[in-house]
Order: sequence, then structure tokens, then C-alpha cells
Amino acid sequence: DRPLTVIAGPCQLESEDHAQMIAGKMKEACAAAGAQYIFKASYDKANRTSLSGKRGLGIDQGLKVLQSIGKAMDVPVLTDVHSDTQCAIAADAVDVLQIPAFLCRQTDLLLAAGNTGAAVNVKKGQWLAPWEMGNIVDKIKSTGNEKILLTERGTAFGYNTLVTDMRGLPQMAQTGYPVVMDATHAVASPGGKGTSSGGQREFAPVLARAAVSIGVAAVFIETHEDPDNAPSDGPNMIYLDHMPDLVATLMKFDALAKQHPMTF
Amino acid sequence: DRPLTVIAGPCQLESEDHAQMIAGKMKEACAAAGAQYIFKASYDKANRTSLSGKRGLGIDQGLKVLQSIGKAMDVPVLTDVHSDTQCAIAADAVDVLQIPAFLCRQTDLLLAAGNTGAAVNVKKGQWLAPWEMGNIVDKIKSTGNEKILLTERGTAFGYNTLVTDMRGLPQMAQTGYPVVMDATHAVASPGGKGTSSGGQREFAPVLARAAVSIGVAAVFIETHEDPDNAPSDGPNMIYLDHMPDLVATLMKFDALAKQHPMTF
Amino acid sequence: DRPLTVIAGPCQLESEDHAQMIAGKMKEACAAAGAQYIFKASYDKANRTSLSGKRGLGIDQGLKVLQSIGKAMDVPVLTDVHSDTQCAIAADAVDVLQIPAFLCRQTDLLLAAGNTGAAVNVKKGQWLAPWEMGNIVDKIKSTGNEKILLTERGTAFGYNTLVTDMRGLPQMAQTGYPVVMDATHAVASPGGKGTSSGGQREFAPVLARAAVSIGVAAVFIETHEDPDNAPSDGPNMIYLDHMPDLVATLMKFDALAKQHPMTF
Amino acid sequence: DRPLTVIAGPCQLESEDHAQMIAGKMKEACAAAGAQYIFKASYDKANRTSLSGKRGLGIDQGLKVLQSIGKAMDVPVLTDVHSDTQCAIAADAVDVLQIPAFLCRQTDLLLAAGNTGAAVNVKKGQWLAPWEMGNIVDKIKSTGNEKILLTERGTAFGYNTLVTDMRGLPQMAQTGYPVVMDATHAVASPGGKGTSSGGQREFAPVLARAAVSIGVAAVFIETHEDPDNAPSDGPNMIYLDHMPDLVATLMKFDALAKQHPMTF
Repeated sequence: DRPLTVIAGPCQLESEDHAQMIAGKMKEACAAAGAQYIFKASYDKANRTSLSGKRGLGIDQGLKVLQSIGKAMDVPVLTDVHSDTQCAIAADAVDVLQIPAFLCRQTDLLLAAGNTGAAVNVKKGQWLAPWEMGNIVDKIKSTGNEKILLTERGTAFGYNTLVTDMRGLPQMAQTGYPVVMDATHAVASPGGKGTSSGGQREFAPVLARAAVSIGVAAVFIETHEDPDNAPSDGPNMIYLDHMPDLVATLMKFDALAKQHPMTF
Repeated sequence: DRPLTVIAGPCQLESEDHAQMIAGKMKEACAAAGAQYIFKASYDKANRTSLSGKRGLGIDQGLKVLQSIGKAMDVPVLTDVHSDTQCAIAADAVDVLQIPAFLCRQTDLLLAAGNTGAAVNVKKGQWLAPWEMGNIVDKIKSTGNEKILLTERGTAFGYNTLVTDMRGLPQMAQTGYPVVMDATHAVASPGGKGTSSGGQREFAPVLARAAVSIGVAAVFIETHEDPDNAPSDGPNMIYLDHMPDLVATLMKFDALAKQHPMTF
Repeated sequence: DRPLTVIAGPCQLESEDHAQMIAGKMKEACAAAGAQYIFKASYDKANRTSLSGKRGLGIDQGLKVLQSIGKAMDVPVLTDVHSDTQCAIAADAVDVLQIPAFLCRQTDLLLAAGNTGAAVNVKKGQWLAPWEMGNIVDKIKSTGNEKILLTERGTAFGYNTLVTDMRGLPQMAQTGYPVVMDATHAVASPGGKGTSSGGQREFAPVLARAAVSIGVAAVFIETHEDPDNAPSDGPNMIYLDHMPDLVATLMKFDALAKQHPMTF
Repeated sequence: DRPLTVIAGPCQLESEDHAQMIAGKMKEACAAAGAQYIFKASYDKANRTSLSGKRGLGIDQGLKVLQSIGKAMDVPVLTDVHSDTQCAIAADAVDVLQIPAFLCRQTDLLLAAGNTGAAVNVKKGQWLAPWEMGNIVDKIKSTGNEKILLTERGTAFGYNTLVTDMRGLPQMAQTGYPVVMDATHAVASPGGKGTSSGGQREFAPVLARAAVSIGVAAVFIETHEDPDNAPSDGPNMIYLDHMPDLVATLMKFDALAKQHPMTF
């Protein structure tokens, strides 16, 4: 019943200055609205649609920047990991390890992440039913780590389209672990632009608000000061300028939702 | 920006006493919460999964009962029509003609309904994209009737399953007409029980709340004092006893949503 | 185990001369390949995407033309019906009444069609699971009419897209009634062009061949001498010039499939 | 236009004797029918639904067995790889590296596999459109390796269900690379049994025959002498006893399809 957490940042890490600028604005916006804040950025986009898509700073430089942001800004930091060997290294630098949706069933990756003792946020695969997340939780719990978060980021719906089934949020919550709504990936159109993904950023606040009203622990929102020129996921990222208003409004729905919890 | 309308009643008309009992409790619950109320019941279930499914009172007796309820309870009444010839007859007895989802593209039915001058509520077909509702609106508008409502009731998602895409609500609203969320049909599992539909009534409030928080003109909720013994749609109808609380909570989200309208 | 039947003709009836030209070419092509032939055309397109879409000759003139074609060309004729009252009238003029996919659950229409004693071909709704066709069969059988055909024409798969699940063919065959593959509607993109449907006519032979190889009683293929200028369904109709080769090839796969029937 | 290749074997490697028995029977069946044969088995099931699912012999012992089978039986061998580092090791032991569907977008894995010079078979992700495989081909081709195969294994269709869109086969073939139909995974019901996948083995021959009739380079079929007691994928594997007949029939459809190639 704590207030909503906002996990936000750019899709990929571009530079320390850029990350710090975004973390600073988001920290301020969250503080103003009473939200908890976690900075998010990826050091490597390991599964771009096309080979020519930019992948980011890489693990060595990337983790240094992420660690530095966490300390400089005094915010928890989340980043995604892509192989067993990256888990321990990343867990030294950040607070939350994120398992990408495509990798959500890779047993060794889940175990390696769990074994670090860091919090682990698993994104539900685009082909997976919400109730299958229980099996994934069990894999992580087998390491003794109970700091688990489960994220909805849309389910495959025909070609090049995702849909968010709002029933999935309480269904995932039935595992007993906090549920996160990833509102910007859920409006992506995977592969929709041929060699990159399209997206409908105008609908990310729709999904965020719906999820918060039902009751979630956190929203995940990628943001950029100039999304149309961002190196990845531009079509679905929210303008950084719009984030303070969006967070403030979400907090009002969060407060109301937490006064009226849904039961199942 | 008027307060939320609640369209509610039993799936099928069972008797005048039963309809009056439900209309009475719903009218009271809506008045207490500040919601507008429209009574809903069907005189004929013309497309039951199986031949042995009960169809209701029939058009003659059914329309008499509906008209009597409207007068006795002083509430507007909605019912669905299934052929061109039923439209004028039904429009004499009720206030809103509803076009069933399966029939949402039948041009003659839309024109006949439009020509009555009554309000027309069209349910989006389970196979239809939200943006296709513009073509349906144009069919009705061609009759000079602009009292049009558009209802989301779920989209086919694999077999025996519906999913509600919350983006569809603002997409349908872009037609300029009021949008209704049918929260109980959207959680049905069509044909899911072999010779009848299944349903997940526990998730109807989830979809209702999500939709109201985004901003809709109305919610549509089927309700019954004993859903498990109702002649149709039992698995997804809400217990009548639960409706006052549900309506009261939805009104709080409605008020907040109307303070913070989403723009596109 | 009789040879494949080919149900083919233009989407909508344009004129007697046009219908006769197509019926003539198709009859010849089918005779050459050893296929049984049924002429198909619609006298009314009752559910066009948009109000401005052409609907055809209408029931009075249309049924006259269809009856005349049947006699003049000595071929059985199929047409679709849209209301209870049309069934008996249409059954006087043609051999097979077809229930459109959107209407496949309308009980009264199924009963009226069954009561004519004519053969009834039901298209599976785009939102319906193949195994739900058993309930539809039961509705028709209740009239004492056992001349039932079941047609696959694609299932909703995300927005504006259909997919054909080849498992559905044997699943529908388990009812004991002949199964038809509608290869041209199954490659339509419903509403895909905004105010009309798109389609991928190049893939219709793919679905036809796959279905025939598995084993079906008939294929349904809409054809036109100039599809791009046809009044409806142009994007998915096959060029009439291509039909003799297509039918001839399908007959080879049909012969092989009937030597190697699949069992379940 | 070479005759069909059959890629077949047990889902997971159980023991050298077991693998040799299956490879022996399949080699014989394929030789009798004129099909080319590739033995398939996995040394590690790295993404089981549940942690308690058996994973197999592991990479060290597994690759030894696979290499031994290849030599002893004089058949090419295919196995799947799950990380960059496994690629070179596996390529020393087998002929074809397979990229699992969940990993089909992992750039480093595709590059590592390509760099081995071995043939690379990529399974299309369950959430991916067929036309997105071009981007994956480009990743592998960037290594100079053109020995690429693309496999259809079903696309997510609602929850716990896959559907095979037969249009995807020619769409993938438009890349210019051979296309494989994985007929047994395509009938799996992912996660359908709670802590493991269900399946409909009776429909695997349906999909195999449909694909071969359209024209594919290979079919992929998992097989076991006692599927219901196999350590993984039992519900969709074909009985080994049924394989000789199945292969013989498929070869007849293959021969006919190759006499009548489809053009796009």
C-alpha cells in the first residue's frame, strides 16, 4: 500500500550527462508528486529488430555510468541483463536486474539473477499468459531471493501489434509479488516500421492510468527529451516535458485506487 | 462531462416483477452515487450458443414489460433489436435501441434503427478494429439520427477468449460519439463451456474501473440476484448485491477522470 | 470420397450476362479437371464495410438472374441469405443457401434456412472456434434438414487480419458434415483499406492447396475477370483467367489426398 | 527442388542408445521414402516451463553423444544453442546450429552462430511476423555465412495456443532461404498444462502435409517411441512407429508440390 513507484528513464544509455539530466528531472517530478523513483536505462540493446540499430554504451562503460548515476543522484537504478555471466557484474552496479521479455523463460538467467540477491524484475514474454508467471517466480524463489517484480508489457495480438489485457495485472498479483505496468513498451508496434519498431506514444498514458486505477505497485515509462531522435524506441517514449504532469495525475489515481483496493 | 451513466440490468428479461426488482435496486444505487441510470434487458436472445439456451419473453410480451418498467420506475430503457422490422416496434416501447455485436455491420438494421429517431447503441463486433466504428457511425448518421453510442465488449483473442484493448476507448471516442464500456460481456468466454459461454465475473470490475478512469460516458453491466441460476450469461454477470458498492466506487474514479480528461 | 467440388463465381451479382460468362468459363474449367462445380454469387452485400459500398442487384432481380443461370448453364447455384424471410424465397431459386459468417449464430436464420429443405452452407464466424460449429449444426439438424456444409473463411487475428488454422478443417469435419475452404475470404484484410477491405489474392491458392491436401469436400473461390475493378472484394478475388490452372492443380492434390485420407 | 528433408528425433537427448535407436529407425524410414534425413536432439532444454522440468544430458556429454551419433549413423545432426559461447563448441560436434524461437532476436547469438560457418536454423519467435525474418537473415549474413534455414513453429494466438499461418511459409521463402515447417511444436499448447506444455499430436501430420503441399525445403518433427513418457514435449511428439508411413505420404505430396511450384 505504499505510494506508486515510477521506473523511468531513456530506453538506452546515451551518455552520463544525458542520463543524469533525465534522472534529475524525473527525481524532481516524482518527489513533487510523492512517488518513489527508480532510474532505468539499458547499457546494451541486445535484440534490436535490425543489425544496424544502435545498441548503446556496452556493459563496461554502461555499468560505470549507471553506478555513478545512482550515487550522484541518490536514486535506485534498474538495468536489464542478457546472460548468466552479466548478472553478478550488473548487480554490483545497480539495484534491480531486469529480465527482458524474450528471455523470461531462460532458466539459467533467472537463477543467475536470483543468486545475486538483487531485486529481479521479470518482463512477461509477449507470448506468455499472465498465469504462467508463477512458474517463473518459482525459478527465482528457488535461489532464496524473494525480491521479485513482475512486469506486463503487452501480449502478441496478430502481427506487429501488442495488446494489454488488464486482467493480467491482478492475475500476476496473485503470485504475491508486486506488479509493474510497462506503459511505453505495451504501445510499441514490434517490427512495425520494417527495420525498427513503431509505437503509439499517445496511448501510453491511457494504459498507465488504467493500470494504476486497478492497482499496481509501479509503472515503467521510457522517456526522452526528444523521442523522435532517440537511438531506440522513439515512437513509444514519452516526452520528458510531459512527465511531471503525467506522474502527478497518476498519483491521484494511485491514491484513490489504494483507498479502494480490488479483491479477488 | 456529465457524470457517468450506468446501463444495467439482467441479461434477459425473465418477468415483469423480476425486471422491476432489479430496476428498483439499480435506480436506488445509482441515485445514491450520483450516476445516471438506464435499465437494460433483452426480450429475445437471438444468437444463443446452443439451440437449447433460453431465449426470453419474446418481442410482444417483452416490449410490453419493458415499456411498463420505464413508466413505473421512471427510468430510460435499452433493449437490443435483431432485424429491420423490430426497430420501429421496439422504438415505441424503449428509449435506446441496441445493435448486437454480431450484427454491427448489417447495413439495413443500422439504417432501420437510425430511422426510428431513438438513440442507437452499437456494440463493436468481436472481430472489428475500434477505428472501423467510424464506418458504422456514418451508416446511422446517414438517417439524420445523431443519437449514437458506441460500446466496447471485447475483441476475439485466440479461441473462446476476448480481450479488451483500452486504446480502443479513446479510438472510438474520436468519432465524436459517447463510448460505453460493457464490462460483463468483455469478460465472457464465448462458447467456453461447450454449449454455453463461460465468464470471469471477478474481472468485470477491473475492466469497468480501468475504462472509467480513462474516461467513458457509460458503463454497461449485466447483473442478477443469483447469476449462477440465471437463464443466460450467468458466469459473467455481477451479483446485484455488489452493485451499490461497485457503482459508488466507479463514480469516484469518474469524478477524478473528468477532472483530468485525456487528450489525443 | 467424391472428387472436389469447386464453389466459384463473382462476389456480387453484376448482371445476367456477366454471371453467365463466369459460370460458363468455370463450368468448362471444372469439367476439364474433373471437379464438380457450383456457381456462387450474392444478390445483396448486406454488411459492406461502408455505406457507399455497392450492394448488388437486390433480392428480386437477383434471384431471377440466379435461377436463370442455374437453368441455362445446368449448374447448381449458391447464394447467401440475410434474414428469415429471405430463406424460403431464395430456396425457390437456388440450390444452396449460405449463412454469412457474421450471422452464423442467428438461431432464427439457421432454422428458417434449415426448414426450406435446401442445402445450407454455414460460414464459421471470424470470432468462433471450429469446435463451436457443432452447436450450429444442431440448430439446423433440429429442422430435420441434414444437407449441411461448414465453411472455414479465417479467424480474427489481431486487427484487420484473418488467419486460417488448418486444424479447424478436421475439427469441423468431426461433426460428420462436409467442410469447405473459402480461400479468397480467408486472405481478406477486413476493413484494411479504411472504408473497404483489403486482401492478398496471391495467397488464396496457398490456402486452397493446403486445405485440399489435408482433405476437404469443396473449395470456395471468388473470381472475376477484372478483380481490381470489381464492385466488392476485388483485392482477394482470383483472376478468372487463372482459374483453369488453379482448379487443375487442386484436383491433383485432391486425388492424392483422397488416396491418403487423414484419420483422427 | 531437391526432395524434402526430414529433421527428426527426440525433443531431448536421453542417452546414446536411445538416440541411436531413433536415428536408426528414422534413417531407414527416410531412405525408404527417398527423403534426406537430419537427426535432431537437444542437449539442454534451457527454457522449460517449470524449474522441475528435466533439461537433458548437458552440453559436454550431450555434444559427445551427438557427434558420436553423426559418425556412427552417417547422418547430419542438428542441435540448439543458447548462448554465444556455446556456438563454436557445438559447431565442432554437429552440422546445424539451431536458434530457439525465444532467442531469435538475440543479435550476439545470431552472430556467434553465423561465425562458426555451420548451417544455422532459426526458429521464428512466437510473437514475430513472418516478414520480420528478413532482419534476422541479415544479422547472420553479416558474418559471411549464407547457410541459413528459417523455421515456422507457430505464432501466439490468444493464451496457451499457437496457430500456423500457412502464408508465412512463402513469406519467409521470399528471403531466398530454405523454409522448414516444425509440425510438432506448432501443435503445442504452451504452458497449457500449468507447469508444462500440452499439445495435439494428432494435428502435427495435418500441418506437415499442408506445408509440404505448399512447398517447403524440410519438415521438422519430434518423435519418440513412447511420447507420453518422454521427459519433454510428450503431448505433441509423434509415435516413432508412425513415422515411416508419415514420411512416405509426405514424400508423395512433396513430389507433387515440386511438379507444381507456387510462384509469388
